[in-house]
Amino acid sequence: MSVTAAKGFRAAGVAAGIKPGALDIAVLVADQPVTTTAVFTQNQAAAAPVILSRESVLRSASKRGIVINSGCANAGTGTRGLANGRTMTETLANEIGCEPGDVLVCSTGAIGPQLPMELVVPGIESAASQLGASVESAARAATAILTTDSEPKQAVLESGGWVVGGMSKGAGMVRPNMATMLAFITTDAIVEQGFLQDVVRAAVDASFNSLNIDGCESTNDTVVVMASGASGVAPDPIRFARAVEEVCRDLTSRMARDAEGASRVVTIDVTGAPDDAQARAVGRTVADSALVRSSFYGGDVNWGRILGALGTSSVTIDPESVVIGYQGVVVFNGGMRASYEETALLESIETGDFAITIDLNIGSGAAHIITTDLTPEYVVFNGERS
Amino acid sequence: MSVTAAKGFRAAGVAAGIKPGALDIAVLVADQPVTTTAVFTQNQAAAAPVILSRESVLRSASKRGIVINSGCANAGTGTRGLANGRTMTETLANEIGCEPGDVLVCSTGAIGPQLPMELVVPGIESAASQLGASVESAARAATAILTTDSEPKQAVLESGGWVVGGMSKGAGMVRPNMATMLAFITTDAIVEQGFLQDVVRAAVDASFNSLNIDGCESTNDTVVVMASGASGVAPDPIRFARAVEEVCRDLTSRMARDAEGASRVVTIDVTGAPDDAQARAVGRTVADSALVRSSFYGGDVNWGRILGALGTSSVTIDPESVVIGYQGVVVFNGGMRASYEETALLESIETGDFAITIDLNIGSGAAHIITTDLTPEYVVFNGERS
Repeated sequence: MSVTAAKGFRAAGVAAGIKPGALDIAVLVADQPVTTTAVFTQNQAAAAPVILSRESVLRSASKRGIVINSGCANAGTGTRGLANGRTMTETLANEIGCEPGDVLVCSTGAIGPQLPMELVVPGIESAASQLGASVESAARAATAILTTDSEPKQAVLESGGWVVGGMSKGAGMVRPNMATMLAFITTDAIVEQGFLQDVVRAAVDASFNSLNIDGCESTNDTVVVMASGASGVAPDPIRFARAVEEVCRDLTSRMARDAEGASRVVTIDVTGAPDDAQARAVGRTVADSALVRSSFYGGDVNWGRILGALGTSSVTIDPESVVIGYQGVVVFNGGMRASYEETALLESIETGDFAITIDLNIGSGAAHIITTDLTPEYVVFNGERS
Repeated sequence: MSVTAAKGFRAAGVAAGIKPGALDIAVLVADQPVTTTAVFTQNQAAAAPVILSRESVLRSASKRGIVINSGCANAGTGTRGLANGRTMTETLANEIGCEPGDVLVCSTGAIGPQLPMELVVPGIESAASQLGASVESAARAATAILTTDSEPKQAVLESGGWVVGGMSKGAGMVRPNMATMLAFITTDAIVEQGFLQDVVRAAVDASFNSLNIDGCESTNDTVVVMASGASGVAPDPIRFARAVEEVCRDLTSRMARDAEGASRVVTIDVTGAPDDAQARAVGRTVADSALVRSSFYGGDVNWGRILGALGTSSVTIDPESVVIGYQGVVVFNGGMRASYEETALLESIETGDFAITIDLNIGSGAAHIITTDLTPEYVVFNGERS
């Protein structure tokens, strides 16, 4: 039941008509003002809702609700877009009896069009009137935030008297810094704001920011985490941090599996980098390569393309020291092809997911990257006129 | 007749058996030691021939010949690869009567396999015995360097008593820093070495380095320019620089048109950047985006994705100041969609090449980027097991 599993939260999803015949406005509301933290896209062309919510979180870490629409990103919409975003927060604030500054706003969909406010405002009002804590309410909210996703993404984890739950959307265009993804996580644990912020930063790095589908960072990405404290339990900090990370990882895995047109999920584990940040940079360079990802599609053991991609990294590498493995089998070592049984290895990656390891043998930095293959279907899908 | 149009050069291409049934070894030889300059890939996993030729050019700018094979990149081949590359230069040096240090070596093809030297050595000997200055000899050399190209790429420009000619290969994987491309240019003009180097750097920047097909920089890219002085004419410097640039642009255009699986060539002109380098960085970020290039495939006017890609650039932009145009029609201005007639514009890019302009309105830096669409054919082609 995701975002309503934690005590003190209600949600709703309605069809406002932005996307014909589909749920397209979600609201998530806390019974009281709750401790809230958020992470936003670093895209310089940030959408209006990102600009507004970023400012709102900076002003105060206490929030009552979030209003989210799908079907229109409200990005590339200038001052009118900002005004429309403000109207969205005002509408929900009016409905639930709080200040607009207590409400965050998120949008996802195509960049460019203005929001049809004549549909959005009544949609928010209708959603606010249907708020509930049931499994159905949470599922409707999780459905209303989807764009090209094929199914809602929800996760929940119960621990000693407290709960962490979440919903997310995002398929394709997903990348470091959470491109074109939204995630909303709630907990009823008692958590101090500064600690919550640290936990969320670390969890996002270990989950959403490890996902690299097509190297495009979106204008709208947002992760919001709200902690109501309604369970009355102050959890063990490490246990709480692990729970948030686990929920984020669960949602990330669902997003990878649902990426537009992808037929396989491929993990890239980089080790032996000078530090973790450089390990991640190396892994992203490999996962960004259209040539490498085409070879994933074909089920090819193509360490040559991985080596070629490594060579373009901003991180200094020594090709002679690099060790590349597929499915645990070393295929490149000492500057050249390793001795391995090719037929068996190719058979093992004929279909399905597989794992690549890259050891730079320089230091002790490591990173885990999740990506998918690049498929003809991806190109056809994303080539369609918007 | 490309590389043999200039006086003082002979060429040959033979089928050594590296690629079954196709020409796969080319030699280009000057009658005397000639002034030579070269530009190499910046990939850290540079192939053995790049390592050897880079060292050779640093030691001396006077060369007699170049030996080139296709069908095997001699990359990711360790110390054995270096030894094999040295054997290639020694073999040609023996045949034409010079030192191995007077010969450069280039390879192109798949990364990983070792060169079949039992075929390569007799192939070089055979090529050296067939050297000629005819159109046919040049065409055979231009064919022997090809990999996935569908046709040889040659260009020639005659001016007041002197000639610049060239051949190149490269389709797909082409990117800034000339990924997976080889180009060989000869001239019989009298040119001083330092000036030649400056001219070539500028010409490569304005041509090969403007081409951005799939963001992958290869392990083997090399441009070599040789000036024999055999015309006896010392040309006007500006006219000479223009001629070299024109030949490089001609070859670049042929490469773009022949890119693997591409159905359209799209030019991106960036203006108003802080400087030219930042204009180029911005253009490359846009041309690197799989989402943007998928929209080219679909013939979509999708300025939203261009804006999204701009926002991820390392160059600081102001979305409110950005003006984006398709085919000269402004579609984004003042932070939002411009007013334009969409149907007519979409019709104009339904099929065929088109042009995009991006004005950042910050400074006076400009760059011209040539790219192609991303197509399902590209993915299928590059997904095949090697």
